[in-house]
Amino acid sequence: VNDRIRDETELIQNYLAPLAAGMPGAFGLVDDAALITTEPGTDIVVSTDPVIAGVHFFSDDEPADIAWKALAVNVSDLAAKGAQPFAYTMALAFPEPPLRAWMAAFSDGLREAQTAFGCALIGGDTDTTTGPLSVGVTAFGKVPRGAMVTRSGAGIGDHVFVSGTLGDAALGLALRRSGHAFGADLADADRAFLLRRYLRPLPRLDLVPLLRRYASAALDVSDGLLKDMARLFVPGTSSLTLEIARLPLSPPARAVLASHPERIDAALAGGDDYEILFAVAPGNRTALIQACDAQAIAIQELGRLTSGVGLSVLDSDGRALAIDRTGFDHFTRQR
Amino acid sequence: VNDRIRDETELIQNYLAPLAAGMPGAFGLVDDAALITTEPGTDIVVSTDPVIAGVHFFSDDEPADIAWKALAVNVSDLAAKGAQPFAYTMALAFPEPPLRAWMAAFSDGLREAQTAFGCALIGGDTDTTTGPLSVGVTAFGKVPRGAMVTRSGAGIGDHVFVSGTLGDAALGLALRRSGHAFGADLADADRAFLLRRYLRPLPRLDLVPLLRRYASAALDVSDGLLKDMARLFVPGTSSLTLEIARLPLSPPARAVLASHPERIDAALAGGDDYEILFAVAPGNRTALIQACDAQAIAIQELGRLTSGVGLSVLDSDGRALAIDRTGFDHFTRQR
Repeated sequence: VNDRIRDETELIQNYLAPLAAGMPGAFGLVDDAALITTEPGTDIVVSTDPVIAGVHFFSDDEPADIAWKALAVNVSDLAAKGAQPFAYTMALAFPEPPLRAWMAAFSDGLREAQTAFGCALIGGDTDTTTGPLSVGVTAFGKVPRGAMVTRSGAGIGDHVFVSGTLGDAALGLALRRSGHAFGADLADADRAFLLRRYLRPLPRLDLVPLLRRYASAALDVSDGLLKDMARLFVPGTSSLTLEIARLPLSPPARAVLASHPERIDAALAGGDDYEILFAVAPGNRTALIQACDAQAIAIQELGRLTSGVGLSVLDSDGRALAIDRTGFDHFTRQR
Repeated sequence: VNDRIRDETELIQNYLAPLAAGMPGAFGLVDDAALITTEPGTDIVVSTDPVIAGVHFFSDDEPADIAWKALAVNVSDLAAKGAQPFAYTMALAFPEPPLRAWMAAFSDGLREAQTAFGCALIGGDTDTTTGPLSVGVTAFGKVPRGAMVTRSGAGIGDHVFVSGTLGDAALGLALRRSGHAFGADLADADRAFLLRRYLRPLPRLDLVPLLRRYASAALDVSDGLLKDMARLFVPGTSSLTLEIARLPLSPPARAVLASHPERIDAALAGGDDYEILFAVAPGNRTALIQACDAQAIAIQELGRLTSGVGLSVLDSDGRALAIDRTGFDHFTRQR
């Protein structure tokens, strides 16, 4: 039996069009283009961030996880800009027509993700390629006019916060590579938590209204804290002193670090956490903290932007750490 | 000397950011997302159509031609929908960091194309891949609210037109594969014309206002006339009788057909012409023809939608042709 998808029509009608149901601008995915109907006083934020097998995920990852991540990494960019996702397009490139079971699981993962994130498929394209599987999502979010949060709005004196915990995804990646990465002592539940943080990043949509209201600048931590932190700085005129002790760590990450303290690099330079790093002017600090408390949103203050150049990292004894690996460069594929 | 691009920063700052100059929503390509500011009464049309080396172009094509095509195929989709392009994002995946000279020529080609089409770069992403070069453009066009031309609006009795000439690109592709494809008798100028039609498709933006005004349905001819024609039909209830003699052919295509009459398949099933196929209600036919005459826009009437199922093609003696190859399926990569 040939269990592979027969042609593009089967792929679209059986697996993708259901994900576009009810979206008027999707035209059932049979048109050449999608339509976005705009609303007065609303701007549209666009993120384009493909994921490629062997680069951003493993080709034998669960198809539902691949689908989730392909959408999540884009929705995370929207969230960091204070935008609420509402639609996405998807360009698929397959090395060969996928198995029906694979495609069913992939579209289930997409459905789960788009339901969680509040958006739906409106268009796309399918090709075969001589290369690896590539899933190219372009995601669209809405933001009140002028309310998009940029990278570049932070000023000297602003407080820098990060949501959630850091390093989990990098440790999860190590576990994805080898289930025994951190020895047999790591509890199964901790292992599962870290793996899931790598495989199923959760965009911080709960922060969207607060970022719009309080953040002077924001971006998601996708390439590692140190690298992404530098992107908040006014080039050449900002610095920040980061105490290692301030890094927000999950209990499973702490369990790993207890036996592998050198893996603190996961929190400093590991990518893929998709937490949000943001700056808040001094006058907004208290209101932000109170709002996050009220909504049980975990955030951690990392430090304050000061005049100067660059970033210093202090260990628990207050000594400066030498930093060599600052993050992930998708272009040169080096950490 | 290593003449390759060093890192993503060099790539963006030196080669891509200049293409985004003056676009406020592009943020100099340093942010994680782009911003589209909407206008009252205007909808946004979105096309996502990547091109991949070995599938849509040859990896040793001129970089300026690759860039042109990557944008043109998307702008063509917008034009067919009656939308005026204004912006695009681009996701690049390179097998290795490109040579600086290659990237300079690529960005020159993009600049040429975006200037010709009236749009500019607002965002994107760059990755390395283990696969072939991929250029994933998502293009945005504006259309007055409700004026987007869909595939599905044609009715029985509508007249079907196509712009320009058909088959040139498929013949150009044969010449791209072998400069001697059609023998030594083909004039150099004809050869150059056909090659250029393949390498440098020209989206029919001149038709945009007329499509909005007169077309009941439209799409671009990217997968071959017969295949794309079927997409205009109301499934199961439309037919059209196409006389071969009505196919609009360029003088260079006629020169090829004189010695290779079997290559009429280029006009029937060849892809990549990026002309626009559209339907017009009987009451609009005269006005359309007059408007095209007045603006010197070449269109050809191919036939009329009638009740029935499917498409018949008649040769010059009025005999029905057997049709086997109906067009290009990017999914199965078969013609």
